[in-house]
Amino acid sequence: MSNVPVSPLAPATVPDMPPLDGVRLATAAAGIRYKGRTDVLMAVFDPGTTVAGVFTKSKCPSAPVEWCRDRIKAGKARALVVNSGNANAFTGKSGRQAAALTAKIAARALGCDADTIFLASTGVIGEPLDARAFDGVMAGLVADAAPEPWMDAAGAIMTTDTFPKAATATARLGKTKVTINGIAKGAGMIAPDMATMLSFIFTDAPISSRVLQSLLKEGVEDTFNAVTIDGDTSTSDTLLAFATGAAATRGAPRITSASDPQLKAFRKAFQQVLANLSEQVARDGEGARKLVEIIVEGATSKTSARRIAMSIANSPLVKTAFAGEDANWGRVVMAVGKAGEPADRDRLSIWFGSIRVAHKGARDPAYDEAEVSAVMKKPEITLRVALGLGQGKDRVLTCDLTKDYVAINGDYRS
Amino acid sequence: MSNVPVSPLAPATVPDMPPLDGVRLATAAAGIRYKGRTDVLMAVFDPGTTVAGVFTKSKCPSAPVEWCRDRIKAGKARALVVNSGNANAFTGKSGRQAAALTAKIAARALGCDADTIFLASTGVIGEPLDARAFDGVMAGLVADAAPEPWMDAAGAIMTTDTFPKAATATARLGKTKVTINGIAKGAGMIAPDMATMLSFIFTDAPISSRVLQSLLKEGVEDTFNAVTIDGDTSTSDTLLAFATGAAATRGAPRITSASDPQLKAFRKAFQQVLANLSEQVARDGEGARKLVEIIVEGATSKTSARRIAMSIANSPLVKTAFAGEDANWGRVVMAVGKAGEPADRDRLSIWFGSIRVAHKGARDPAYDEAEVSAVMKKPEITLRVALGLGQGKDRVLTCDLTKDYVAINGDYRS
Repeated sequence: MSNVPVSPLAPATVPDMPPLDGVRLATAAAGIRYKGRTDVLMAVFDPGTTVAGVFTKSKCPSAPVEWCRDRIKAGKARALVVNSGNANAFTGKSGRQAAALTAKIAARALGCDADTIFLASTGVIGEPLDARAFDGVMAGLVADAAPEPWMDAAGAIMTTDTFPKAATATARLGKTKVTINGIAKGAGMIAPDMATMLSFIFTDAPISSRVLQSLLKEGVEDTFNAVTIDGDTSTSDTLLAFATGAAATRGAPRITSASDPQLKAFRKAFQQVLANLSEQVARDGEGARKLVEIIVEGATSKTSARRIAMSIANSPLVKTAFAGEDANWGRVVMAVGKAGEPADRDRLSIWFGSIRVAHKGARDPAYDEAEVSAVMKKPEITLRVALGLGQGKDRVLTCDLTKDYVAINGDYRS
Repeated sequence: MSNVPVSPLAPATVPDMPPLDGVRLATAAAGIRYKGRTDVLMAVFDPGTTVAGVFTKSKCPSAPVEWCRDRIKAGKARALVVNSGNANAFTGKSGRQAAALTAKIAARALGCDADTIFLASTGVIGEPLDARAFDGVMAGLVADAAPEPWMDAAGAIMTTDTFPKAATATARLGKTKVTINGIAKGAGMIAPDMATMLSFIFTDAPISSRVLQSLLKEGVEDTFNAVTIDGDTSTSDTLLAFATGAAATRGAPRITSASDPQLKAFRKAFQQVLANLSEQVARDGEGARKLVEIIVEGATSKTSARRIAMSIANSPLVKTAFAGEDANWGRVVMAVGKAGEPADRDRLSIWFGSIRVAHKGARDPAYDEAEVSAVMKKPEITLRVALGLGQGKDRVLTCDLTKDYVAINGDYRS
């Protein structure tokens, strides 16, 4: 992990993460797997904090995913405990016990109900997690928790990530300025549905858990669910949102309906944070050297455009062509063809960047190989496919498939 | 291509391919793309030869696939012309013209109807194929055609293959011995449905085209359609079978019904040839160092078992784990979970070779890491997953995902 250089696609600047009323953060080194780095994050919330979440659709979810799913409907959160190094997935009965024990230790340190503790674990699958490791650090985490250390929090949840991922936005709710902060970890096993292993969004807006759930569900569709690294889906994918409601003391209105017109600016800012974080996840795909935006238009529907875009984005042959800086649109045709969605070869056009390389079922005679080569050398490339069938349009983000992806994943456990 | 060493998984011996009455073969170097090697195969059939075929399900098939599809129902073949170096796929109107011209040139050289010429092309997609290149070699091919050069034929259709693929079997039809010979090329874009880019089966048995079609369709299900390299599907996947009927002169009965009991031994031998060839395709997956057999049992149905096996076989994280000789059964759980098929984590057991590493939803405490490591070092590994839900069972073949796969495919056109 520490031997891998920072992704060349990492954002140039680190966001200036403001404190957020009602949230305090602390990190610790519990030695779960990694030595000499933090591996536990605790976020402590003021009473009254609401929570919403979306989770992996894996039929074999991790113990923390099951723990959170069972408690998300109650909608109340007092703390989030996240560890890296061990995913507590496929750990059977002992995994469920480890999750319960972690929550119990946190609840005791905070003096709250264990059912208001939310959990996430990331790292190796199938190894027992010894939750007693948390016993030594939890009281310190609660004592140390402070409003500032957002980037430390983003760092503590990293596994094969090469840079910490955080984003922030503000919006007016009524006349009151509210803040949305988010952190994420990604890198491998990034695919719908859910597109990141772990992401956590925090706001001081007073928003009911039902509304928060609705915002999350609509928000992930074109952000986290539209990002794919390798088509694999983690057993641990978790996106949780927490709303402390602290801005109510500064006059923010309480929002209890998703159709409340006062939500407009907040909804947009919330979406921006999700888009920003999910793009950072794509920028840190394991071994990635190219950020690839795939736009499919002229499909028979948005759903069809999404399926075709995902077929292209997950094709190993397309991904290795990007790695080789090869404008191999023949492989794009292949990936369109295998999607199983309506497509007419003789209406298909394909662009790399602004250069149309294929038109109406054949190579575009006008394109210049040197111009396309210049596009392919860039770190960020847009591939556009026009099907010429209808109005359906969609966009997904992915990255190239490099030898480093194989190196990272062929040598992960050792 | 020529720089890539022969796959370490190649069969130790080259099969001794017997001549087959009614089939004559010739190869030539037409200089379509490669220099200094043969790139055209012609198989000439005696009058009365029947033909059957299965093709890619791609929505963007190549011109030769469309040519063959339009003529397969008539069921009569006088020749097969295959070229490597250019797939004549996504070449628009000029591609259709190139296919028609190729057939016309071959028909003229043979003095037969162009509609009895079957075509296949493999290689780069999207580049126009200049069929006039065949004009200079076709008369020579017809003149040179001979019963023996099966391995030359297998060599002429190679692209990124590292060894030629051929198989043979005999069976009794009535009291007469009949022969089945097959050749294939594979390597990249190997996935259902069709599992190889090109494969051709030949027999001297007198079998109607309808029966041959039925044998092919049932035969591919657990052979070519159960092999996957990278989940990608070629625009050119083609499997054709030709029956010359020449064995009738030696007393073989004419078969016109797929339920004819006389077919029993022939059906088995035919299936063996398909199984042999499709396994060779897996053994020559691009960059492959491990042949991986995936067995899924205890599923709710065979279809469900197939989907789970394919989800495992196509997972980049599972494939890189095999490349790294890492018995990472956590990733197997992940791939089971993402298949979307019925699975109960707490009933799942997983074996690498004969060693059970996971049992009933957790790591098997009895397994020995050193023993598993020894299994993972082998060139051929069986991964078995027991779901504990029902009687559904299936098997697929795949290979590992190595840095060489990325190297081969990231640098294919240049």
